Amino acid sequence: MKILLVGAHGTVGRGVAAELGQRHELIDAGRKGASVTLDLADRDSIRRALDKVGPLDAIVSAAGLVGWKPLLDLTPDDWAYSVANKLMGQVHLALLGQQYLRDGGSITLTSGVLRDQPVPYGAAASLANGGIEAFVRAAAIELPRGLRINAVSPGVLLESMDSLGPFFRGFDPVPATRVALGYARSVEGAETGRVFEVQ
Amino acid sequence: MKILLVGAHGTVGRGVAAELGQRHELIDAGRKGASVTLDLADRDSIRRALDKVGPLDAIVSAAGLVGWKPLLDLTPDDWAYSVANKLMGQVHLALLGQQYLRDGGSITLTSGVLRDQPVPYGAAASLANGGIEAFVRAAAIELPRGLRINAVSPGVLLESMDSLGPFFRGFDPVPATRVALGYARSVEGAETGRVFEVQ
Repeated sequence: MKILLVGAHGTVGRGVAAELGQRHELIDAGRKGASVTLDLADRDSIRRALDKVGPLDAIVSAAGLVGWKPLLDLTPDDWAYSVANKLMGQVHLALLGQQYLRDGGSITLTSGVLRDQPVPYGAAASLANGGIEAFVRAAAIELPRGLRINAVSPGVLLESMDSLGPFFRGFDPVPATRVALGYARSVEGAETGRVFEVQ
Repeated sequence: MKILLVGAHGTVGRGVAAELGQRHELIDAGRKGASVTLDLADRDSIRRALDKVGPLDAIVSAAGLVGWKPLLDLTPDDWAYSVANKLMGQVHLALLGQQYLRDGGSITLTSGVLRDQPVPYGAAASLANGGIEAFVRAAAIELPRGLRINAVSPGVLLESMDSLGPFFRGFDPVPATRVALGYARSVEGAETGRVFEVQ
C-alpha cells in the first residue's frame, strides 16, 4: 500500500513508521523536516500535499497540536488553535483526503485517552479527542467507495513521560511500538467507524 | 435558584422552562425573541448577557446550531458554523459563565444521541456532541469554588419528528417533558462531570 503518514516525525509517528514501513510504501508529511510539507491547520497546505502525493491507499494522521494549560488559563486563541489543529485539522485531512484515496482505502485519525480520563491542563485535548471519535463514527456511515475511517486512542506515551509524567501519575504508559499496532489494525484490518484504544 | 436558560424558546428549552420554572427564577436568553439577547457564536454577546443578568446559581444551555447535510456536502463554512455554535459556543458560555456563578453553582450543556449513534447528515452534530461531552468531563475536574458542569444528551425529540423523522427511523423519540428531567437532574442534583442521557 501507498500510505501518507502525517506527523511522521513525532513520537507516535515514528512508531507508526517503524511498524507500517516494514510492509508498505510510506510518505512522511509534517509541518517541517518531512518529505512533504503539510500543516493540519491550513487546508490549502493539506490540499497541496495531497495533490503532490496522490493517489493513495491510506492516510494516517499521527498529528494534532492542542493547547495545554489550566482550564481557566486557556484563552480563546488557545481554544481556536486546538480546534484548528487536532480537531478540525484532522477532519479536513479526512474530508479532503478521501478524494485522493483509491476505492477501499482508509483514513486513520488520532484521539487519545483524555477523552474520558481527563487530567488538569488537558481540557482542550479532551474536547478534540471527543470530537474526533464522534466524527469517525459518523463519517464511516457516509463515506463512499468502500472507504473506511477509524481513530486510534493512545494512552500517555512511555517516551513522553519525562515531560508529561507529572500530569499522568497513575496512568500506565504505553510504548510507541505498541501504540503503532492500533494504526496497523486500522490500516491493514477491515473495520470502519471504530476507535482502537491502545491505553 | 436564579437560572439563565439559553435557547429557552427552542423545543428542548421550552420543556426545560416548564420543568425548572416550577421551582426557580428563570431568565430566558436566545438569539431573538428572548428577554436577554445571547448568540452562542459571539463571545461578546455572551459576556454582555452575563453582565446584564449575573450573579447566577445555574446556567443551562439548550441551544446549539449545527450544519445538517450529507457528509461530503458539508463545506468548511458549515463546519466552522457548527464548531462556533454548538461546540465552542457552549464552551465559551461555560468558561465565561463560571465567573458569574455563585459558589457551588452549575453549568449544564447539551450534547445528543448522535455522539455514538450517527445518522446520515449528522456528522457535524456528532462531532459537536462528542466534543461537548469530553469537555464537561475535563472541565469538571478543574472548575473552582465547587462549581459543577454536566451535559444532557437527548435522543431525537418527539416534537421534532415531523421534520427529523426520516433521519431517525428506528430511534425511540423522547418528549421534551422527559428530556427536561435530565436538566433538572444536573441543576438540582449534586453530580459533576456527568452526561445525563435521556434517549
